[in-house]
Order: sequence, then C-alpha cells, then structure tokens
Amino acid sequence: MQKTTLICEGKTKRLFATDEPELCVMEFKDEAMAFYGLKRRTIKGKGEMNNLICEQMFRLLAGRGVATHFVRRLSPSEMLVRRVDILPIAIVTRNIAAGDVCERTGIAPGTRLKATVVECHYKNNELRDPLVNYTHIAAMGLAGHEEMEIIQRVALTVNGILSTFLQSVNIDLVDFKLEFGRAANGEILLADEITPENCRFWDARTHEALDLDRFRQDLGDVREGYQKIITRVLRNDRNTEDKIQ
Amino acid sequence: MQKTTLICEGKTKRLFATDEPELCVMEFKDEAMAFYGLKRRTIKGKGEMNNLICEQMFRLLAGRGVATHFVRRLSPSEMLVRRVDILPIAIVTRNIAAGDVCERTGIAPGTRLKATVVECHYKNNELRDPLVNYTHIAAMGLAGHEEMEIIQRVALTVNGILSTFLQSVNIDLVDFKLEFGRAANGEILLADEITPENCRFWDARTHEALDLDRFRQDLGDVREGYQKIITRVLRNDRNTEDKIQ
Repeated sequence: MQKTTLICEGKTKRLFATDEPELCVMEFKDEAMAFYGLKRRTIKGKGEMNNLICEQMFRLLAGRGVATHFVRRLSPSEMLVRRVDILPIAIVTRNIAAGDVCERTGIAPGTRLKATVVECHYKNNELRDPLVNYTHIAAMGLAGHEEMEIIQRVALTVNGILSTFLQSVNIDLVDFKLEFGRAANGEILLADEITPENCRFWDARTHEALDLDRFRQDLGDVREGYQKIITRVLRNDRNTEDKIQ
Repeated sequence: MQKTTLICEGKTKRLFATDEPELCVMEFKDEAMAFYGLKRRTIKGKGEMNNLICEQMFRLLAGRGVATHFVRRLSPSEMLVRRVDILPIAIVTRNIAAGDVCERTGIAPGTRLKATVVECHYKNNELRDPLVNYTHIAAMGLAGHEEMEIIQRVALTVNGILSTFLQSVNIDLVDFKLEFGRAANGEILLADEITPENCRFWDARTHEALDLDRFRQDLGDVREGYQKIITRVLRNDRNTEDKIQ
C-alpha cells in the first residue's frame, strides 16, 4: 500500500490517496488553528499526540460496534482510513455548556445540561459552519432523511460510550463535533477525528480544559493538556502502552 | 368588558388587561421598528391596517379549525383576544428563501425551497432571537416535547391554509413567524399576530414585497403595500367589505 497524491488539506490534517482506491492516509499536522484561521501556531508533536488519541477513540468505538473509517495506525502521525465522501453536516453533541452555545442561548458556561444537546452544522467555512436544522438540510438537499437519522443516532451512541469511558479516567466529555462520510458501498461511517481538536475534554475534578481551548483561550501549554489525556486514556490499555512517547 | 391596565408593550402592539381575567385587548401601534429597534418610524394608519389584516387571517384559520387567541375586532386598531402565557419560542415557516436564512445558509434570496423550512427561535431580544433546535429547548426547559409537537404541527397547518388562500389572491406567502401561548385551561393557542409585520407577502407575479420589508429595506411606501394586501384579502369577503377604510 503506497501513499500517493494529496486529496485535501484541512486545518489539522492532510488526506492522501493510496494505490488502493478505497483507502486513504490521514496525517495529523502540528499546526494549530482557531477562529477560522485568525489564530495560528505550530505546536511540535501535536500531530503525533492527536494520532495516538484518535486511534484509541476509534478502537474503543469499533469495539462497541460503531462503524468508523479507521483501519490502523501507520506511523507516529498517520493513520490508514477508508475513503469516504464526507457529508456536509457536522454533528455537535453537548453535555456541558461551553463555547458558542453559551453565546447563542445565554446558558452559563460550565452548566451541566438537563438534556443532551445535538446540533447540526452546515460545513461551510465561508458561512462559519452555521447551525441548521433538518428542514434546512432537506431544503438544501445536503443529506437524506435516513442518513440524518443514522448520524444522529451514532452521535448519541458515541456520546454514551466516550462519556462513560472518559469518566472512568477522570475526564468530562463536555462536547464534541463528529463528521460522517459515505463509503463506496454506501455505508455511513464515522470519519474525521476524535481528538482534543474537536472535543472539549475537562478534568472532571478541577474543570481544567485539556483540549484545544488551551490554545484558543491561552489557558496553558497545549502539549501538557494533550499529554494528560494520553496518560489517562492509555493508562488502562496495556496493548498500547508501548506507543506512549 | 372594560379595558384596564397595560400588561406589556412590544415593537408593534400593546396588550391591556380587561375586567374579565381571561380576556385582553391587543392594540396595534402605528410605530414601525426594524433591526431590533435600530430603525424606527411612525406610519400613520399602519396599526389599523394590521388589525384589519390580522382579523381576516385569524377568522380564516378559525374557520379551518385552528385554535387562536382571537375573539373579535373591537375598534379600528384593537382586537379582543384570550389571555395566554406566551411560550418563549417563535416558529418561523419558510416557503421561499428571504432574509436571515439566506445569510445563514447561502441560499439565494427568492429561491423557492424544495422542502418547507420550519425554524424554532428562542424569543430573547438581547440574544436577537437565536435559532435553536428541540434539544436546546429541552436543555433550557423552554417548552415541553408535546407542546413543541403541537406548535410545529399548527405552523405547518397554518402554512397550508394561508398559502392556498393567498395564492388565490395573487400573493406568495414567503415566510412567517408565529407565536403561541398557553391559555388558563392549558390549551395551546396561536397568539400574537398574522400581519405584514411578521409575514413576508410578495406579489406572486412581480415579486414586489408588500410587507414590512418595504420599511426595513426602503423598498417603497409601506401603506401602499399594506393597502394592496387589504384590497386583495378582503376582495372576496363580502361580510368585511364595509370595514375597508
């Protein structure tokens, strides 16, 4: 299996084709970006840390029956994934109020929500990924009704699995943004990444942010936060202990 | 039945208590307001025109089985309504893209939507009535699941009734914002108003705006637009012809 041409480059990753048409290489970058590119910095080692965290999360989910694009880790900063057409909808799931939902609703940051919030955002950088609902999605023809039912159900399943696991290692899963893709066989797979870049992870006791908010809001050393996640996530996983840098 | 104290005053109306605890007087004002109060003007006769249009719309809906707060017209600018506790959710229904949905989604203004869009907005002036979804509403405890089902169903019913009627008088119902309230007996009633202040009405042939967008966007004389609506809406209604000013 040979990595070939660059398919696309995003804020935190590069995606490459391979000589196998249904497989891609996803490379995690060291660049950090926030506020739609207004704030940028290179954080050496971030890509490798994200690759390691993402592998653990996808393995955990696959073990619980969630269909993901993850195939295997290839190198410190690369993973092999199934090729999918990404749906233009991101699903944000929230357990604790943080970030833009507080500005939208007036809910105080840090409030544990009485009911899980699930939001659909139209993936469009120019429009800044606006909140939309199922009727906007139908009117724009962005995704089918059945696809929307699947991805909402998977988002809630992922929330249940990850929240429980992370709670066991003293981390609160505050919120996270999932992306989904359609594989060549039509299957809807959880795609993109599950890392501190698209999840808010707080220390369950101190409420310290361990995620990219450290960079967005200058809350402390980013690598230190990510390293805390790795240490806790891999603590109980003997098979992967050898991978800790 | 005597009008007593002012209960509240909004952008376009005043609501008064009466000596009957379950009835209120709703008075339509001549003041026009847009962009959350940044643009204001008094348009003499606007309140009377809105009262007349609103009466026709509520009568039409009541005749088709929609439960509304409307009781009867009292004077040129006042109507008698049932007293309700207004739910903090406004339902916006859209048939043609116009206004903020175009900025949100990038859909070109004037596009006839492939599917009807129904939006929930949290009524909060300070937050500028943000778009929310059912999970936000549940998390904030703004309304019950059953109430949300009722008001969404009523919004679609109202859309069907009004679109068909207005089409017959050469008006396109582009979009409209409904508010609902809980009566003393627990019944959910369509409340507030149905006028060119909270509906976009376009001439079906020329696409000329006949509504408050004439004021918002300086598209022409406001009274002239409203008078066109009145003339068309009352044209086929002999019982109310005597009310045309």
